[in-house]
Amino acid sequence: MIEPAVPVTGGGLNRVRLDIAYDGTGFAGWASQPGLRTVQGVLGDALSLVLRSPVMLTVAGRTDAGVHATGQVAHADLPPDLALTPVAPTGSSALLAPPGSSAPVDLGGLVRRLARLLPPDVRVLAIRSVPPEFDARFGALRRHYVYRVADQPWGVQPLRRFDTLAWPRPLDEGAMNDAARRLLGEHDFIAFCRRREGASTVRRLQELAWRREPDGVLSAQVSADAFCHNMVRSLVGALLAVGDGRRPAGWPATLLASDRRSSEVTVAPAHGLTLIGVDYPPDDQLAARTALTRAFRAR
Amino acid sequence: MIEPAVPVTGGGLNRVRLDIAYDGTGFAGWASQPGLRTVQGVLGDALSLVLRSPVMLTVAGRTDAGVHATGQVAHADLPPDLALTPVAPTGSSALLAPPGSSAPVDLGGLVRRLARLLPPDVRVLAIRSVPPEFDARFGALRRHYVYRVADQPWGVQPLRRFDTLAWPRPLDEGAMNDAARRLLGEHDFIAFCRRREGASTVRRLQELAWRREPDGVLSAQVSADAFCHNMVRSLVGALLAVGDGRRPAGWPATLLASDRRSSEVTVAPAHGLTLIGVDYPPDDQLAARTALTRAFRAR
Repeated sequence: MIEPAVPVTGGGLNRVRLDIAYDGTGFAGWASQPGLRTVQGVLGDALSLVLRSPVMLTVAGRTDAGVHATGQVAHADLPPDLALTPVAPTGSSALLAPPGSSAPVDLGGLVRRLARLLPPDVRVLAIRSVPPEFDARFGALRRHYVYRVADQPWGVQPLRRFDTLAWPRPLDEGAMNDAARRLLGEHDFIAFCRRREGASTVRRLQELAWRREPDGVLSAQVSADAFCHNMVRSLVGALLAVGDGRRPAGWPATLLASDRRSSEVTVAPAHGLTLIGVDYPPDDQLAARTALTRAFRAR
Repeated sequence: MIEPAVPVTGGGLNRVRLDIAYDGTGFAGWASQPGLRTVQGVLGDALSLVLRSPVMLTVAGRTDAGVHATGQVAHADLPPDLALTPVAPTGSSALLAPPGSSAPVDLGGLVRRLARLLPPDVRVLAIRSVPPEFDARFGALRRHYVYRVADQPWGVQPLRRFDTLAWPRPLDEGAMNDAARRLLGEHDFIAFCRRREGASTVRRLQELAWRREPDGVLSAQVSADAFCHNMVRSLVGALLAVGDGRRPAGWPATLLASDRRSSEVTVAPAHGLTLIGVDYPPDDQLAARTALTRAFRAR
């Protein structure tokens, strides 16, 4: 049962942040679509059922069909008259506390209640009260993705086959990192974007680096302030062409001069991609960040 | 096509070692059973098809239904008139070479051919020629397993739900390690074994230690010269009872005094368990090791 009541501040807006993980294999992406199983749909239904009130989720990264998440973030506004008691974490939940914070992470016991209700391919890791200025989408400073590729002759480790791409030829990570470094910084990434009308495709690519994991898999760490549609998978597709020798290391950066989507770039498959985290500014800078992002994206 | 021919030594016995990985979810265990999908069955069929000759596999660890492997080892005797050319590893396969060895790991290109033929939930990582004294089962010095348990309030990370047990209460790893240490060494583990007639249940438990992984999961590293049937899962079941406070840390070790299987021990579910590796002695000690194991097990 929902317990009474810590006073909620912020002009009646009862905003919460949700940290979310999912296996994208069985979902038609994040965004609700009629007749399709989506993360937003499954999660919204479960939350609405528990709270007995419709809940609208706004997310940091609208992942495509098949893309996974271990560190997705969303916000929602709960009914103003619904006040939930923070539940102190028990046992090994210290991990769940946000960095530099001792805020409760299981508001109203919702995490445990949702764990019983949700299917095993989606989990809510934490729910906490946030200021009304917190905006999961426009307030984000950075998104972090990982892309996993196995180029071993035998293919992909069976237990990791749902989040790892099998590549049929050996990949040269030195060449891929050489090409990746030339893409860093602020550029118009339109060659790597599926364009949406009227929106800017200028982004600041902060990290794009490949490394061999202990199990031999090549993984790319990719971070930017934001990504336009298909951008991570297009970058990875271009670097895979470099890695197996079909393109020189200088080629991907030449596409940054383009003023349209490049037909030469192959979008890498969705299932190798995982959203691993989203960064936000401190509470007192939330409103400024959101205003800045909105103005910039509208350019 | 099978290429001609490096001379095979060893009295006509054409023995190979196979390193194998599988997701146990879709298998009724390792051992062939009529009408059931087993790793031995699927792998034996694929090998027999490629080599156009029946192939019998002998394995280091006969894993139960649902148990996974990243480092299973088997041996097989190929037809004496079939000689395969070692194929040098390409690209990133250095990982596949056995420690301290430069032996080819893709005899006759079989690894690549099997990768195309096998279903994605089982992979052959390496195939190499071994001396006829190599016995995957009786020659093994040690088997290494990992057992993964998530005790977070939200359950299991979706992408790891197939190889991780969800535990509904917080676990005290300090107490579990305290209990585990008292089980190390050579003991009659009959309390933790499903007894098979006439076989010794004395084993040397060399490692049993829990640690928190970076993602918050508790994992047990378990190593012994060998394990009797259900032994790892029974040890884990006993330690879980300690970890969530139902039993004191001294309890599991008291069962070592028993002369029969304990009805108080719950066998932990199969899907949390993965065989991660098997150790063998150097080539010149293989025959002695196999003879010793056979003699000891028959006690």
